[in-house]
Amino acid sequence: MKTAVTLDTQYLNGFVDERDIESISPEIMRAHDTVKNGTGAGKDFLGWLDLPSRMQNSLADIKDCAASLRSVSDVLIVIGIGGSYLGAKAAIMMLTPPFKPYRVIFAGHNMACDYISSLCELIGEKNVCVNVISKSGTTTEPAIAFRLIESAMRKKYKSEELKKRIVCTTDARKGALRKMAEENGYRTFVIPDDVGGRFSVLTPVGLLPVAYTGIDITGLIDGAIDASLDFSEPDMVKNLSYRYAAYRNILYRRGKNVEILSNFDPCLHFVAEWWKQLFGESEGKGKKGIFPAACDFTTDLHSMGQWIQDGTRNIFETFITVKNFPKDAVIPVMDRDLDELNYLAGKKVSFVNDQAYKATAAAHFEGGVPNMTIGVPDKTAYSLGSLLYFFEKAVAVSAYTMGVNPFDQPGVESYKNKMFKLLGKPGSV
Amino acid sequence: MKTAVTLDTQYLNGFVDERDIESISPEIMRAHDTVKNGTGAGKDFLGWLDLPSRMQNSLADIKDCAASLRSVSDVLIVIGIGGSYLGAKAAIMMLTPPFKPYRVIFAGHNMACDYISSLCELIGEKNVCVNVISKSGTTTEPAIAFRLIESAMRKKYKSEELKKRIVCTTDARKGALRKMAEENGYRTFVIPDDVGGRFSVLTPVGLLPVAYTGIDITGLIDGAIDASLDFSEPDMVKNLSYRYAAYRNILYRRGKNVEILSNFDPCLHFVAEWWKQLFGESEGKGKKGIFPAACDFTTDLHSMGQWIQDGTRNIFETFITVKNFPKDAVIPVMDRDLDELNYLAGKKVSFVNDQAYKATAAAHFEGGVPNMTIGVPDKTAYSLGSLLYFFEKAVAVSAYTMGVNPFDQPGVESYKNKMFKLLGKPGSV
Repeated sequence: MKTAVTLDTQYLNGFVDERDIESISPEIMRAHDTVKNGTGAGKDFLGWLDLPSRMQNSLADIKDCAASLRSVSDVLIVIGIGGSYLGAKAAIMMLTPPFKPYRVIFAGHNMACDYISSLCELIGEKNVCVNVISKSGTTTEPAIAFRLIESAMRKKYKSEELKKRIVCTTDARKGALRKMAEENGYRTFVIPDDVGGRFSVLTPVGLLPVAYTGIDITGLIDGAIDASLDFSEPDMVKNLSYRYAAYRNILYRRGKNVEILSNFDPCLHFVAEWWKQLFGESEGKGKKGIFPAACDFTTDLHSMGQWIQDGTRNIFETFITVKNFPKDAVIPVMDRDLDELNYLAGKKVSFVNDQAYKATAAAHFEGGVPNMTIGVPDKTAYSLGSLLYFFEKAVAVSAYTMGVNPFDQPGVESYKNKMFKLLGKPGSV
Repeated sequence: MKTAVTLDTQYLNGFVDERDIESISPEIMRAHDTVKNGTGAGKDFLGWLDLPSRMQNSLADIKDCAASLRSVSDVLIVIGIGGSYLGAKAAIMMLTPPFKPYRVIFAGHNMACDYISSLCELIGEKNVCVNVISKSGTTTEPAIAFRLIESAMRKKYKSEELKKRIVCTTDARKGALRKMAEENGYRTFVIPDDVGGRFSVLTPVGLLPVAYTGIDITGLIDGAIDASLDFSEPDMVKNLSYRYAAYRNILYRRGKNVEILSNFDPCLHFVAEWWKQLFGESEGKGKKGIFPAACDFTTDLHSMGQWIQDGTRNIFETFITVKNFPKDAVIPVMDRDLDELNYLAGKKVSFVNDQAYKATAAAHFEGGVPNMTIGVPDKTAYSLGSLLYFFEKAVAVSAYTMGVNPFDQPGVESYKNKMFKLLGKPGSV
């Protein structure tokens, strides 16, 4: 293994055994072939497979653009939704320190009137730049946000200044946003045709906002490249990504229709949100799919803990753990031990948290919740890059094993069509 | 009706009909009697029933304390977990405007080492005060956080100054935090004995942090008082709280084991987190319970939308809608209609968002997801107070109907016991 991703499955004992793995193995191997040879449904969207190595030549350009945006601004407004929002958000929330003033604000990922109105006001007060991300340029939420934000920017900055402050990430040739960029002289980055939204975090979609915050995008790509090597072999023992895909399909077939991705540090909250899109949108179709849910522990042990320990047994749990953090605190001694914590004096908070994780995995297992743990060694761009690719490879193989196309999302049109009709959009039926 | 809470059930048609309601009605009425007469399991924890009117006399004291804390500080650190965290967080996130610098920071709701270390550093830079909330004072997470934070405060402020800056919300007589408050001369507020953590938002647990931000806590209580009148009658037509309890039990018995609480404004995100604890912890026991999940739309229509529209049909959905918001934005016209949005020019963002809600409810229904909508007229403390009580009453009746004690949480001890053993806590087995 080049990466240090681990998969601990001790608490699947009694729920899944090696014979189950043997039995599902031919299906996983078929899914592997389908992905590798590009012979399955959605085969035009396999660009993420070798994306990390393909991106290496573009990193200097992206860093350069991020640096020039930083040199003229204090805040970057990122306009995007779905895959054009969650990847960057996940990386930034995991890899930037807590309590620092925001450097990136997301917009166009909702149609909340208070939110967008307040943000437009903020443009008057702050020194801002914008990265608008949309393949077509006509997706309702980001298009509305960009109209409002560009209009607020025009009140403050001249056209020449806007060219330094607005960057469009969009289709290479076609679409509304491409045209708007050309007409206004905005700098552009390309969203590849063969990479779907939920797999786009390692394209300029994710990398430019991430680079703006100073996160090491080379490390992110290096972690993904190494993961693409680690998780490429059709080997059910060594390929942890495939084992993860196998376990979740086995559990699903035994009636576990909810998977909870649980972390023990809130920095991972949006990694879980990104994962929910990746797995939910890839697998939730044809009346199939494991419902993806997420918990932040120990926080949610005091809200969802009771349910998980003792509720309906339709769930399994996947923990993500991080071993080393940049900062730690040592619990001080107290003269009189009123709060009865002196037995922990001199211990690090991370140590106590780690025991909480171990205790939780064991307790949930005893309560009838099969669980496994995906571990990364540290809170670095490299580890995140490995983890992202681990999940991307797993979902492709998992969805094919489930019998669905991992790369389409036909269901998302239903509400849009109804909305366009209600809004009286020309041509809507 | 005194409150303006609404319940729209048109998209339950074909999933639940009036005969189902008639058939479950005797069970709901029995649950009503059990709650009203205090004859059921957990009957010692019914204090939330008439809490809103009992709290009226304490509001002046709470406001007074909040004002004196504000007069000496810029930031309040609230230390608490579970019910001592989520209620205040929900109210503050719903009722304070977006993008304002934080006035309240939560701590002791996790054991994240980066988080607590960075917060202790921040104490050196900011003008802070603290509200520590714990019935016992020995719950691991808040106790560790309070040790660290008090220790950081002592480096900055003298003992006399700490008396103005630290307030303890705890048991009336016993426990570690009560003792620490007495020894150090910290001001205190009482957590009533007959109100469990997840029902404590309208006690000083929730009200003091909320009052610190300037939110109208009288409005919050007034809304809850009116809701306590609206939702007290054993009437399956008028009592919307009981209808909600009935519908979800009917759906649960038909195999819907996941409920998604979906909003269309991110200000409601933590109302949903509060709801997840309220329903999850009250119902998830004895291998029973509906798994509580939440979505923020339209954001999550671009991540979870596919799954909801077209995945495994084990889900139902409950929307929360808010009609009027303080601010709104009008979509501007664009000279050349490159993004094809001119058909919306002159329309408010809230109008478009509202059509998105209507389209989503209709589309999910057609996709096989029964759904209903709980509506409140505005983003005010009064509306939130009504909504909180609506849910509290519903969960008590719903859990009794499901055949479980709504007021205990035996499962949360499992991981704690294992953790104490791993940590070598004296007396742990």
